[in-house]
Amino acid sequence: MADAPLPDPHIVRSFDAELSALDRTLEEMGARIDANLTEALAALADHDADRAAAVSAADAAVDALEQRVNEQAVRMLALRQPKADDLRSVVAGLRCATMLERAGDYAAGAARRGIAEHAPPPGRSGASVQRMGRMVGDLMRRSVRAYLTRDTAAAHAVWQADAEVDAVHSSLFRELLTYMMEDPRDIGVCSHLLFVAKNLERIGDQATNIAELACYRVTGETLGHARPKHDLTSFAGLDDRAAPPHET
Amino acid sequence: MADAPLPDPHIVRSFDAELSALDRTLEEMGARIDANLTEALAALADHDADRAAAVSAADAAVDALEQRVNEQAVRMLALRQPKADDLRSVVAGLRCATMLERAGDYAAGAARRGIAEHAPPPGRSGASVQRMGRMVGDLMRRSVRAYLTRDTAAAHAVWQADAEVDAVHSSLFRELLTYMMEDPRDIGVCSHLLFVAKNLERIGDQATNIAELACYRVTGETLGHARPKHDLTSFAGLDDRAAPPHET
Repeated sequence: MADAPLPDPHIVRSFDAELSALDRTLEEMGARIDANLTEALAALADHDADRAAAVSAADAAVDALEQRVNEQAVRMLALRQPKADDLRSVVAGLRCATMLERAGDYAAGAARRGIAEHAPPPGRSGASVQRMGRMVGDLMRRSVRAYLTRDTAAAHAVWQADAEVDAVHSSLFRELLTYMMEDPRDIGVCSHLLFVAKNLERIGDQATNIAELACYRVTGETLGHARPKHDLTSFAGLDDRAAPPHET
Repeated sequence: MADAPLPDPHIVRSFDAELSALDRTLEEMGARIDANLTEALAALADHDADRAAAVSAADAAVDALEQRVNEQAVRMLALRQPKADDLRSVVAGLRCATMLERAGDYAAGAARRGIAEHAPPPGRSGASVQRMGRMVGDLMRRSVRAYLTRDTAAAHAVWQADAEVDAVHSSLFRELLTYMMEDPRDIGVCSHLLFVAKNLERIGDQATNIAELACYRVTGETLGHARPKHDLTSFAGLDDRAAPPHET
């Protein structure tokens, strides 16, 4: 409330209370996504269709929380008419909810994809998927915490770490292609695992986006598109081409 | 401006002018994405790496436009403190820009993926990809127009039509798997085409999201998660399982 010269303490307290409520909704979204991702990985490991279906169903609660954030933010914009830092926090909250909702979709999608074939993951691909899943789960938790605590140093660390996820994803992509070539019977399950890996990588992207948003919330500046990440698999067939600037 | 009993005509005009400027930025984003998608499909058809790289580079302009929408919207929220319909239009503009930016990323990603392998698409898969690309390009144009003209009937038609895209995507997914099984030498190119098809399907998703947003902008109500869409390929290995409620 820096630019309100004589703020009414009651109004100030109310805005802060509303902002805390909005942050708590985001925190709950993060916790649910974390739980859903853990369950999705367990469903993948055990090839448990019921557990995968439960993750898919549980994603509806994440969607409902996003809707709640939207309502909270629009009400604050309409009634409080926040400015400067406060306005930025509300707008950041709206965008954070969109990113979390998307991460939730990817977790649910990974669960569904992982049980779409009855065959087990060939070779060590199942273990690689689990490892990648734990990596992005960790990044997601850290990015949400950095956002809520306005910790730009922690946000920057997440932003940097996503490059490791991309490298792991690229390696897994090649690993799966190798299994497909070795035994055509693995093509079905590996095709789905390509998408599981991609979904996990996209969860890492959302963690990066939320880390950027944490910085925006504090400083008002975006880290921009200089982010140190890209999907290396897009150029998996090329030798000497520069990596693309953006992830898809 | 329904709830401003005695509006200052100057202020009213200024807000409307700013909203028009925001809409024009969104319109320009839509036009650029349309052009980029067309170029991406041409790059795919001709297997033209330079053209694909140009699409990838051109996506930076779309990202810059998203940033401009964010700045326009935050300025309007801070200075105009809009309410009711006006507030909803600004918030919808912010969200629309996010969706358009994402669609632009998918178009650029499709171009890059499509030229990642030197081998040509097997059988009729190249033609299927082109057809799917034209479908989603059409949906994207229609959804942006519906959003800008506040045409809820047109928006609802887009929302319905996306189910066809999902069916085409599902069919293409199976087609690509068949080619991979027939000839392991096609596994590399087909793996990338799986992602091209997925990127196109995600552009269709964004068209659906923008169509929902067009309705929200006009009515203040979301179409919710009852949308008639889902990724059928997630369950391509299962026979009797219900389709998942959400796309990933």
